[in-house]
Amino acid sequence: MTADPLVIFTPSGKRGRFPVGTPVLTAARQLGVDLDSVCGGRGICSKCQVTPGYGSFPKHGVTVAPDALSGWNAVEERYDQKRGLKEGRRLGCQATVQRDVVIDVPPESQVHKQVVRKAATAHEMVMDPATRLYYIEVAEPDMHEPSGDLQRLERALREQWQVEGVEAPLPVLSKLQPALRKGDWKVTVALYKDHRDARARLIDVWPGFFEGRLYGLAVDVGSTTVAAHLTDLRNGQVLASAGVMNPQIRFGEDLMSRVSYSMMNPGGDAEMTAAVRAALNGLGTELAAEAEIEPRAIVETVFVCNPVMHHLLLGLDPVELGQAPFALATSESLSLAAAELDLTAVNPAARAYILPCIAGHVGADAAAVALSEQPGRSEELVLIVDVGTNAEIILGDTSRVLACSSPTGPAFEGAQISSGQRAAPGAIEKVEIDPKTMEPRFRVIGCDAWSDDPDFATLAGVSGVTGICGSGIIEAVAEMRAAGIVDPSGLIGSAEQTGTPRCIAEGRTHAYVLHDATAKGGPLITVTQGDIRAIQLAKSALYAGARLLMDERGVDRVDRIVLAGAFGAHISPKHAMILGMIPDAPLDKVRSAGNAAGTGARIALCNVAARAEIEETVRKITKVETAIEPRFQEHFVAANALPHASDAFPELSKVVTLPDVAFNTGGDREGGRRRRRRG
Amino acid sequence: MTADPLVIFTPSGKRGRFPVGTPVLTAARQLGVDLDSVCGGRGICSKCQVTPGYGSFPKHGVTVAPDALSGWNAVEERYDQKRGLKEGRRLGCQATVQRDVVIDVPPESQVHKQVVRKAATAHEMVMDPATRLYYIEVAEPDMHEPSGDLQRLERALREQWQVEGVEAPLPVLSKLQPALRKGDWKVTVALYKDHRDARARLIDVWPGFFEGRLYGLAVDVGSTTVAAHLTDLRNGQVLASAGVMNPQIRFGEDLMSRVSYSMMNPGGDAEMTAAVRAALNGLGTELAAEAEIEPRAIVETVFVCNPVMHHLLLGLDPVELGQAPFALATSESLSLAAAELDLTAVNPAARAYILPCIAGHVGADAAAVALSEQPGRSEELVLIVDVGTNAEIILGDTSRVLACSSPTGPAFEGAQISSGQRAAPGAIEKVEIDPKTMEPRFRVIGCDAWSDDPDFATLAGVSGVTGICGSGIIEAVAEMRAAGIVDPSGLIGSAEQTGTPRCIAEGRTHAYVLHDATAKGGPLITVTQGDIRAIQLAKSALYAGARLLMDERGVDRVDRIVLAGAFGAHISPKHAMILGMIPDAPLDKVRSAGNAAGTGARIALCNVAARAEIEETVRKITKVETAIEPRFQEHFVAANALPHASDAFPELSKVVTLPDVAFNTGGDREGGRRRRRRG
Repeated sequence: MTADPLVIFTPSGKRGRFPVGTPVLTAARQLGVDLDSVCGGRGICSKCQVTPGYGSFPKHGVTVAPDALSGWNAVEERYDQKRGLKEGRRLGCQATVQRDVVIDVPPESQVHKQVVRKAATAHEMVMDPATRLYYIEVAEPDMHEPSGDLQRLERALREQWQVEGVEAPLPVLSKLQPALRKGDWKVTVALYKDHRDARARLIDVWPGFFEGRLYGLAVDVGSTTVAAHLTDLRNGQVLASAGVMNPQIRFGEDLMSRVSYSMMNPGGDAEMTAAVRAALNGLGTELAAEAEIEPRAIVETVFVCNPVMHHLLLGLDPVELGQAPFALATSESLSLAAAELDLTAVNPAARAYILPCIAGHVGADAAAVALSEQPGRSEELVLIVDVGTNAEIILGDTSRVLACSSPTGPAFEGAQISSGQRAAPGAIEKVEIDPKTMEPRFRVIGCDAWSDDPDFATLAGVSGVTGICGSGIIEAVAEMRAAGIVDPSGLIGSAEQTGTPRCIAEGRTHAYVLHDATAKGGPLITVTQGDIRAIQLAKSALYAGARLLMDERGVDRVDRIVLAGAFGAHISPKHAMILGMIPDAPLDKVRSAGNAAGTGARIALCNVAARAEIEETVRKITKVETAIEPRFQEHFVAANALPHASDAFPELSKVVTLPDVAFNTGGDREGGRRRRRRG
Repeated sequence: MTADPLVIFTPSGKRGRFPVGTPVLTAARQLGVDLDSVCGGRGICSKCQVTPGYGSFPKHGVTVAPDALSGWNAVEERYDQKRGLKEGRRLGCQATVQRDVVIDVPPESQVHKQVVRKAATAHEMVMDPATRLYYIEVAEPDMHEPSGDLQRLERALREQWQVEGVEAPLPVLSKLQPALRKGDWKVTVALYKDHRDARARLIDVWPGFFEGRLYGLAVDVGSTTVAAHLTDLRNGQVLASAGVMNPQIRFGEDLMSRVSYSMMNPGGDAEMTAAVRAALNGLGTELAAEAEIEPRAIVETVFVCNPVMHHLLLGLDPVELGQAPFALATSESLSLAAAELDLTAVNPAARAYILPCIAGHVGADAAAVALSEQPGRSEELVLIVDVGTNAEIILGDTSRVLACSSPTGPAFEGAQISSGQRAAPGAIEKVEIDPKTMEPRFRVIGCDAWSDDPDFATLAGVSGVTGICGSGIIEAVAEMRAAGIVDPSGLIGSAEQTGTPRCIAEGRTHAYVLHDATAKGGPLITVTQGDIRAIQLAKSALYAGARLLMDERGVDRVDRIVLAGAFGAHISPKHAMILGMIPDAPLDKVRSAGNAAGTGARIALCNVAARAEIEETVRKITKVETAIEPRFQEHFVAANALPHASDAFPELSKVVTLPDVAFNTGGDREGGRRRRRRG
C-alpha cells in the first residue's frame, strides 16, 4: 500500500498527506492554510484560486507530475469562459489531489492578505476586516419543526462557517425572508464580528451569490478638515479619497472657540454635531459616486478625531474639555451602529468604530498615529509629533510609550500670523533667504517655480501670491534667523542693524518684507515681530511638550523623529530644527509620516485585531498632562530662544552662518557687531 | 473571650456571628439574605428597613435584649422626621449588631419580593426586574490618570455594586457629565441587565439620590385590541391599564385580511406597522398621564402578540405567515431598544422585550399564556385554550407540553354571525332558553338585569339590545341545542317540529327569534342556520385541535381545562361543553384564567429569569401543525355534531334534557319523534 499523496502549500510551507480525490480547498482548510472562500467550496466565488507547480522542487523534496491534480472540470471551464481564469490557475474547491503536489496560494487568494503600505516602516498591514461575506445554503422551513428563517440561517452559518450566534437588526431581518425565497434558499450575507462581541451581526443579505464587494470609510475628523478614504475591505485598496472643510468652522475657527460656542449657546453642541454629521454624509455620497459603488456596499466606518471633535461627532457636549481637569465623557473606543451617528450615505446597518482617546487633550487621532507608527514596537526611541492647533506628542520604544498634548495654538496653521492663511494656492510654503544679500525667494502652493524665476508671475497664475501658510512661516522665520535678520531672542533687526532695506519699521518693532506687490495693487507680505512672537510661543510649547516626555522617560535625546499630519508632511525638518521646534536629532532620522492618523484609521478599518491592539496600547500609554507639570512651564520659558543651530547641526552651518548675539532694539551697536562678523 | 453576637434573619432563617458594631445590612449581605438597598448603605434610600425582634425566641434558641442593636441614630432620626419610619423599624445600614438578635426582613425590603397574583395557581410572581436603580459615588477626574467619566462610573459600579461592564447609548452618555457634576459626583443610575447580555446597559442617570421609581409597560397586541398595563417595577403593582382598538382594523378585520392587504399593497405592511406603533405611543402617553408619572420613568416594555401582530409590530412583512409553511422571519425572543419600535412615550433609552413565538400560528401571546399558566409545572394534565380568530391550544404537564393553533375563524368573536357584534354595551352575552316553553331570556353587556325583568327596558338604557357577542352566540346555540330547538346535526327545527313560533322560516332553513323589537322600530335578533353552521365549524376546529394534541400525547381525557383570553373569561364552561367546543372534563375543573397572555407579559416584565424560562419552555414545546395532520381533518369532521351532553355531564342533564335525534329538514317524522320523547 502506497502512502497518500503529499500536498505542500507555498508560501506557508504547510504540508500534509491527503487521500486521492481530496479537494485542494479541503486540504488547505485542514492544514490551516490561509486560502480564501466565500461560497464555501461550491465553485461559485472563485476566491480559492491556486497555482499548482509542476516539475522538480528540490527544496521540498518532491517532483510534481503533470497529473498531480485532477483534470480541468466543467465548473472551472464555465468559470473560465464567463470570467476568465488566469493562466496556470485552478479553483481550489474543484481541483482534487491525485499525486504529490506543490500548490502556491497567490496573495489575492489569501484571507489575511498582507498589504504593502507605502509609508510604512513599522509593520505591514494585514487584512482582517470585521465585516465579511458568507455564501450559505439555508434549510427550507418545515411545518413539522417550525423555526424562524433567522434561526435556520443561524444554523447554516454554524454548520457551514462555524459562526456562532447572529444578531439581526430589524431592518436587516425584514430583508431576510424575501432574499431567501428569491435566492432559492441560497443567500450571501455580510456579517460583522468585532473583537468585543461574542455574537456576529447581520449587516445585509443578498439572494444567491453576491458578486459585489464590501467597502469601508476611514475618516479623520479634524478641526479644520474632514478627510475620508473609501477602502476596499478585501484588499485595503483606497478607491477614492476626499476632504471637505469641517463646517463647524462657522461656530469657531479653533477647538476652544467651538467649546466656548457650546458653553455660551444652549444647544450649540447639537448644532455642531448636526453640521459635522451632514458633512460626513456629503463626503460618503461623493466618494461612493466617484468610485461608482452603491452606498449600500459601504458597511463599515472608522473615525479618528481629537477629543473635542470626538465628542461633537458623538453628540456629547465638549464643555468639560474646555476646562481643567479636561474630563472626557468616555475615553474608551466605541462600536456603534453608523445610524447612531445619523450616517445615511452608507448601508443602513453599517457599523461605526471610534478609536479610543488617550486623554482629555490627546485624542483618537493620536491613538491612530500610534497605531500607524507603532512606537511600542520600535527598538529605537522615537518621538512622534502631530502638529495642529494642539500638538500631540508621543515618545516611546518597546519598553514604554508616553504621550502628551501641547497647546501650540494655531500659529503653525497660519492663523494669528499677520499675512497668514491656510495652505491653499497662492500661499507661500517655501522660503529661502540669501545670508549675504538678505534677499528672499519663495515658492507658493500650486506653482513649482521659485519667485526669482523670470516666469514666476506667469506660472503662479491668477492666484499669484496671497499670503503665508504654516510651513511657509516656519521656513521664513528660520531663514530670517539663519540670515541674522532675527537675533536669538527673536527680535527683528532694523534696516541699519541688518543692512537690508527689507527690514522696515512697524510701530516700535520691525518687520521683514517678503513680497511687495503694492506697486501693482498687490499685497505687501511681511513677517512682523508679532509673527515671530507667535511662532516662538508655538514652537516653545511644542518643544516643551517633547522635553517633558523625555524628562519622564529620563533621556535627553531621541533616536528618531516622525513628523505626522498634513503639516508634518510639508514642514522642512531642517527649518524645524533651526527654530528649535523639535529636539536635536540627525537630519536623516527625521521623517514625515504623512497623514498617520488617517493611516491608523485605515488600519483599524481593515484589521479588527488592530482595534484590540490599539485599545490595549492606549490603556498602557503613560499619559502626561502638560497643564499640571511645573517643568512644562520651565521648558516652555527656556525654549523661547531661537537656538544657535550651527552647534547642533554642523551640516547646517555649512550653508548658513548664524549670529550668536542678540539685537538691542534701541541701538545699533549689536547690529554693528553682527555686520562685522558677517562681513 | 466571648463569642461574637449571633444574628438570625427571618423569614429566611439564615444566621451567622458578626463582630459587635457590624451594620445589619452588612451582616445580611454576607449571609446572602435578600435585603434591598439602592444607596449601598448610605442611609439615603431607606430600602433596607428591618424589624428587630426582642424577647425570647425559643425556636431560634436565643433571647434578644433591648440593647441588642445600637441605639437610634441621627440618620434614622432625620429619616423618621422627614418621611416617617414605621413603628419598630430600623434602617439596616445604620443599626449595628451589639448582642444576639433576631431580625425580620419585611416583604417590602426584599429585593426578590413575592407578589401575590390574584388569578395565579401555578406559582407566585417573584420580582426580579431587568432594570434597577443604583446609587453610586463616582471618583472625580484626575489629570494625572485621565479616564472618561463613563470609565470611572463603571469602576464605581464594579466596586460598589459588583456590576461588571456597562454599555451607554450615546444619548444617555450625553447626560452623564452634567449629572455627575450637578450631583457632586453622586448619581443614581438605572441599569438594564437581562439574561442574555454579559454587560449592563445604562438607561438613565439622575444627579444625587433619585427618589422616583421605575415603571414598565406590559403590552398585549391583539388583532382587535391593544391592551397595556403600566407596572411598578419594584412591586409589580399595576398602576393603570388601558386598551385601544388596534388601528390596523382599517386594513382588515382579521389576521388573514391584513396579510392579504400586505400582499396586495406594496408598503402595506409598513402602513400597518406605523399604525400599531402610533397606537402604542398613544396608550403609553395615556397611561403615564393617568398614573401621573413622567414617560421618562417608563424604562421597560414587554410585548406579547400573535405571529402576524408580532411581525407587523417589528416591521416585518407578515406575508409568509399567510401561506404554508407559515415561516416566521424569527421565532426567538427579541431584546431591543424601544426606540427601534419607534416608541416615543417612554424613556428614550427604554428597552423592549418580545416573547418568543412558538410556531407560525402559535405566537408570543401563546408563549405568554404558557408563562402565566405554567403547564409544564402542572402535575395534572391541563388543556389551555385561548380562543380568538385563531385558537391557541396548549396541552401538558410536568412531563411534556404540546401546542398547536386551530383556525376557528372569527365566529367566536361575533363576526360572521347574522346578528353578531363585538362585546360592547347592548350585546347579548348570556342566554337561557326554557326547555319547556322554548322562550328565551338574556342579558346584555352593560346591564345586570335579565331581559324578563319588568324594568329591563329601562335598565338596559339607551343602547338597548343591539346584537349578539361571541359568548352570547355560544350560549344561544348551546341553549337551543339543550332545549331541542337544534338537533345533533345542527339543524334548527321548524315551528311545527319544535312547537314554538320563535322558529321561523328563513329561505330553505329556519331561524330562532331571540329578540324582536321590530314593533318599536328596534332590531330583530335571530340565530340563523348559517350562524349555527359557523359556530359548528369554529367549535369543531377548536375541539379537533385539542383532540390532536391529546392524540399526540396518547390520552383521551384531560384533568383540567383553562379558558384563557377575554373571550375565555366570559364564556360559560357549561355551554362550551354542551357545544363540544372543549373535551369533556368535570365542570369544577374548568377555570377561566382571564387575560393570561397579559399576565404572562407582566411576569416577563417583572422577572428577568422568567424570560429565560419561557424561552427554554418554548424551545422544548412539541409543536403540532394542524394544517398538515390528516387526523386534524378527521377530528374536525367527527366534531361537527352537537354532542349529547347528558351522557358526559350528568349534572347538566339535571337541568337540561337533551334530545338524541336529528331533525330531518324535509319531513316531520324526526320532529315527531323528538316531540314524543320530550312530551
